[in-house]
Amino acid sequence: MKALRYTENGLHLAEMPVPDPSGEALVRVIKSGICNTDLEIVRGYAGFRGTIGHEFVGVVESAEGVPHLVGRRVVGEINAGCGVCALCAAGDPRHCSSRTVLGIVGRQGAHAEFLTLPSRNLLEVPDCVSDDEAVFTEPLAAALGIMEQVEIKPSTRAAVIGDGKLGLLCALALRLRSSDVTIVGKHTDKMSVAADGGVSPVLRSDAGDLARSFDVVVEASGSETGFADALDLVRPRGKIVLKSTFHGKPTWEAWRIVVDEISVVGSRCGRFSDALEVLAGKRIDVTRLISDRFGLEDGVAAVGRAGERGVLKVLIGM
Amino acid sequence: MKALRYTENGLHLAEMPVPDPSGEALVRVIKSGICNTDLEIVRGYAGFRGTIGHEFVGVVESAEGVPHLVGRRVVGEINAGCGVCALCAAGDPRHCSSRTVLGIVGRQGAHAEFLTLPSRNLLEVPDCVSDDEAVFTEPLAAALGIMEQVEIKPSTRAAVIGDGKLGLLCALALRLRSSDVTIVGKHTDKMSVAADGGVSPVLRSDAGDLARSFDVVVEASGSETGFADALDLVRPRGKIVLKSTFHGKPTWEAWRIVVDEISVVGSRCGRFSDALEVLAGKRIDVTRLISDRFGLEDGVAAVGRAGERGVLKVLIGM
Repeated sequence: MKALRYTENGLHLAEMPVPDPSGEALVRVIKSGICNTDLEIVRGYAGFRGTIGHEFVGVVESAEGVPHLVGRRVVGEINAGCGVCALCAAGDPRHCSSRTVLGIVGRQGAHAEFLTLPSRNLLEVPDCVSDDEAVFTEPLAAALGIMEQVEIKPSTRAAVIGDGKLGLLCALALRLRSSDVTIVGKHTDKMSVAADGGVSPVLRSDAGDLARSFDVVVEASGSETGFADALDLVRPRGKIVLKSTFHGKPTWEAWRIVVDEISVVGSRCGRFSDALEVLAGKRIDVTRLISDRFGLEDGVAAVGRAGERGVLKVLIGM
Repeated sequence: MKALRYTENGLHLAEMPVPDPSGEALVRVIKSGICNTDLEIVRGYAGFRGTIGHEFVGVVESAEGVPHLVGRRVVGEINAGCGVCALCAAGDPRHCSSRTVLGIVGRQGAHAEFLTLPSRNLLEVPDCVSDDEAVFTEPLAAALGIMEQVEIKPSTRAAVIGDGKLGLLCALALRLRSSDVTIVGKHTDKMSVAADGGVSPVLRSDAGDLARSFDVVVEASGSETGFADALDLVRPRGKIVLKSTFHGKPTWEAWRIVVDEISVVGSRCGRFSDALEVLAGKRIDVTRLISDRFGLEDGVAAVGRAGERGVLKVLIGM
């Protein structure tokens, strides 16, 4: 099968054997989506070597012990826990310390014709959700995950910093709960995707007037200045949600967090079931985020395109 | 009156006029306590010039419009809000953006024979609470304030980093709610104060075995390594409470907060009424923290003593 791989030879398309499921489910990938994490891996930031990609929709080819899944169209939770530790036993493999993560940690990824995942990770996609929409299940779940950790009420004044894919999805997700959501970015055209969903767009250069006025600020820009911006925008005793993983060791003004008694909440993944429900209800038009499409044979070009300024989601069709 | 002041001439005892209360209450100070914030001011870190000190017990000399307070023994909330903004109107002047803070921001402090505060800031001290105990109301309120922001249950596994005054009070305060509290420090003798209150002492050099095991970790060491230690000790999805204000811009591994979905909660002040209740109930023996006593005339020496290694609370008697 074809697979898009990052190894010591860089990013390249390779011919690989179809993986042996050995107790897991084998999934034929229909489409996959390119995430910023893929771009970080290809830049060498994440230490992963192998087939990249973790956003996908596919069809189950085989699923040992779960025959009713075969032939079903599915998406898949990307964290595969050990299944026996206290966290896994409590139903949350997302924090299992020996987990593998599809295309990110110790597990071959989704930009390939086939992948394997534990059957318990797979969720059937409702018929009313298109393949294009289903590919967004993982990033949309991550955006909705904010609301697992921070209470958002209809009156909560929320801001999202960053108008990339993640920022737009976070803003649209928050807008499902709150009527007062602002996105702070640098690109009017990208922010229009959120504005059409009822989010107020504000250019970063105009955000000074909004200082100390938000109950919740989501940092989704992935830049070091994003956190400083969040500190400026949040009110005393407000909450900053850190959604993007900037690596390295940035500096931070910790004393401001103490004096203003701010909470900083790290947020990574969310529940796929919540995302599928939002997609099935057509509550967010994720297809507005699609910038381009490539075949798997042009996967290297697809990743290049995804890294260009102004480009949102790039899909790969198998 | 005598007052202990920090000005461009450094720390010195000065003869000053008794302050004009102009609408506020005038309090004759009985005793005051030296806090690490006083030491930071004297080191030039905080930008404050004038009479230092914010921990005190005193007697009301005059209180315009509140005659029943006169002659009463009181402690006083140190944040004086504007009284009209939304935060003040909601009963929380601790975050009023134009607040003054006793001996810290724009208001003369407590290491003096007299001070003024708004009458509404004063709380009468129950007879069963001694002067020595009452001086601890402010720092004990700050320690108890953790529980205003983070839920502590009997089964919550909590750790406090730092065995200074603040760390000891935080550990003893948490122990009132949870049966599983650990203090991580470098000084066995200081930690014994917490150990005698049912807290488990662990030397920092032995803390490696406790990695990723605590639901809540309180950083009260005031050192930059304290936050890194907290990240090591907290479990995935756990909470770190930042209690000490280290100035400057330390570095932090923000990505760990995202990947492990940790919450970092800034915590500064607490409610004086809660602290007085704990003191009246003799639930924490704060007098164990008293290392030395000085008269106000020896205030400069008292501050010097408070800055010595191994010294906990130093009291000043007027």
